Amino acid sequence: MYSEPTTFSAEEYFATQLPPPTLQHEIERVREFISRQAKEGRNVVLVTSGGTTVPLELNVVRFLDNFSAGTRGATSAEYFLKAGYAVIFMHRQFSLQPFSRHYSHSTNPFLDFLEIDGVDQEGSPPIVSVTPSKRADLLDVLTMYKAVHAEGTLHTLTFVTVNDYLWLLRAVSQELSVLERKAMFYLAAAVSDFFLPRQRMSEHKIQSGKGSLHIEMDQVPKILKPMVDEWTKDGFIVSFKLETDDNLLLPKAKAALERYGHQVVIGNDLHRRKYEVVFVSRKAGTSPRASPPGSPTSAANEDQFEEYWLRIPIPDASIPPHQVKEIEEDIIVELVKRHTAWVSRT
Amino acid sequence: MYSEPTTFSAEEYFATQLPPPTLQHEIERVREFISRQAKEGRNVVLVTSGGTTVPLELNVVRFLDNFSAGTRGATSAEYFLKAGYAVIFMHRQFSLQPFSRHYSHSTNPFLDFLEIDGVDQEGSPPIVSVTPSKRADLLDVLTMYKAVHAEGTLHTLTFVTVNDYLWLLRAVSQELSVLERKAMFYLAAAVSDFFLPRQRMSEHKIQSGKGSLHIEMDQVPKILKPMVDEWTKDGFIVSFKLETDDNLLLPKAKAALERYGHQVVIGNDLHRRKYEVVFVSRKAGTSPRASPPGSPTSAANEDQFEEYWLRIPIPDASIPPHQVKEIEEDIIVELVKRHTAWVSRT
Repeated sequence: MYSEPTTFSAEEYFATQLPPPTLQHEIERVREFISRQAKEGRNVVLVTSGGTTVPLELNVVRFLDNFSAGTRGATSAEYFLKAGYAVIFMHRQFSLQPFSRHYSHSTNPFLDFLEIDGVDQEGSPPIVSVTPSKRADLLDVLTMYKAVHAEGTLHTLTFVTVNDYLWLLRAVSQELSVLERKAMFYLAAAVSDFFLPRQRMSEHKIQSGKGSLHIEMDQVPKILKPMVDEWTKDGFIVSFKLETDDNLLLPKAKAALERYGHQVVIGNDLHRRKYEVVFVSRKAGTSPRASPPGSPTSAANEDQFEEYWLRIPIPDASIPPHQVKEIEEDIIVELVKRHTAWVSRT
Repeated sequence: MYSEPTTFSAEEYFATQLPPPTLQHEIERVREFISRQAKEGRNVVLVTSGGTTVPLELNVVRFLDNFSAGTRGATSAEYFLKAGYAVIFMHRQFSLQPFSRHYSHSTNPFLDFLEIDGVDQEGSPPIVSVTPSKRADLLDVLTMYKAVHAEGTLHTLTFVTVNDYLWLLRAVSQELSVLERKAMFYLAAAVSDFFLPRQRMSEHKIQSGKGSLHIEMDQVPKILKPMVDEWTKDGFIVSFKLETDDNLLLPKAKAALERYGHQVVIGNDLHRRKYEVVFVSRKAGTSPRASPPGSPTSAANEDQFEEYWLRIPIPDASIPPHQVKEIEEDIIVELVKRHTAWVSRT
């Protein structure tokens, strides 16, 4: 299944692939947002969320994708907002978003709880209102939603492809560096490890009927390294590791910290991610060794890391969805605590 | 990019791949739905919608996908319901659905037009109602939605993978055959041409860092042939061809009719699909030649087909989305006319 790697450095990647056409415009709006939050004294967190696609054709019909509805990112963004953070929510188009996530068109369609009440005034259309039994739940969400919009503490950005994601991430990180330690990066998006360079993409829809499909892709550059070293200045960076094989979770989390030198890896197993996560971080007073490029990833020194397991009970199926405890609530409490310590340590 | 094909027949496919665990349960509900519609004298259309995924791992993290928000299918389902059809809406999880499609969480979030009005009665939560300026648009959609639910003319099924899709399609087609000519099949889903047999799937997440990714997949069996010959009895079958290369559209549509012997192919170009489609069908009195399996697809006899182009003006960007003419309205008018003629021809 594998051949020898074609490894792009981040620098080579950005030198050979094209930015999304709206990038400049988007970044100006991000700059305004950050500058307003800075004036108002808020911490800002960049939350990335949802999967990225890898188009296989220039006129995109088919693409490789990563599984992610965006639950972790959308839920976490809400708790960051509740904790007083301003949030740049950078998410995959059509993935879940804070607040509206409670009203999925599939599982909780809002049209089901609207009622036509009869005529308000002569000639004007009938009043449409929310069924009394649904009001209490909706009111919580709606009140928070309106407060966030009134305060202007949520800014939403959209990506589809892994290329959109990489360009946006770099540009937003650079903008956030003005906040220094007051910026947090919560990288919950499920980013493809592979991409198909523009130069090798098929212009039209790949025709079937000719045989089985082979796709040869290149590795996406590891962007945490330049993010830590170049793009940001003292930002508090949290990355995620999702695995289905438990034995790989901790070694891979530690290897990532060793290699990139950022602050926290949150490890989670695909099937237990709603009830259990592990925070892996470097012990105070230790620092990543300056290892030669290409040195084995298993060489991370076990003694230099600490693990903090966070678990919540698996919710009883009889509890209404709105009242179920979400693990993101506790994740954000823990991160805000760590980030506060990080900000004060100047 | 290609090797020699591994071609599965539909029979081989279903003999070697596993059905989705909920299939039996789903099909019992479909049977009840069809039986009720038959009693009430309605025509029933199966609308398939959205893209299918091809999982690359058993514990799915990565998958190949087809671009489709499900706009064509969701919009068409609404017009079929308006035309008095009962609709089995078989769609990709999280793709657009009839009615709620007007209120995308990204472009038209419903939370934006809800207002908190103050207290209704002492002790009960405040009334939440729809902003007057949004009422008229919403009322149209909501009235139709409530009527469809009251009459029970919409049944929704969900798929994710191409395997789910194939099993569901076969089972639903077999159930619909009791309606004979009164059943229509409107196959608007964007179905993968390739799949990865369960037997070759990786159990865990494919590890990156070892090199570039190669994926060797097999061809999905052509299911229109067994659908026409075995699964359905006299159903009116409409398939779609989406291309980005105009020169391929008509030849491929005609080749499909020649090969499978169904009633209509609707051809559309990826970039003009909202304003222009072409109905390709066999002229009255002609019939597909009994060609030996594997004979070239370009051999379709041009004289035996007719083309019917359907176009609407490209809408002015100043028209509010709710008032924009949708091409699906005209597609469904044309199909209902053809299906009515088909039903009367016994």
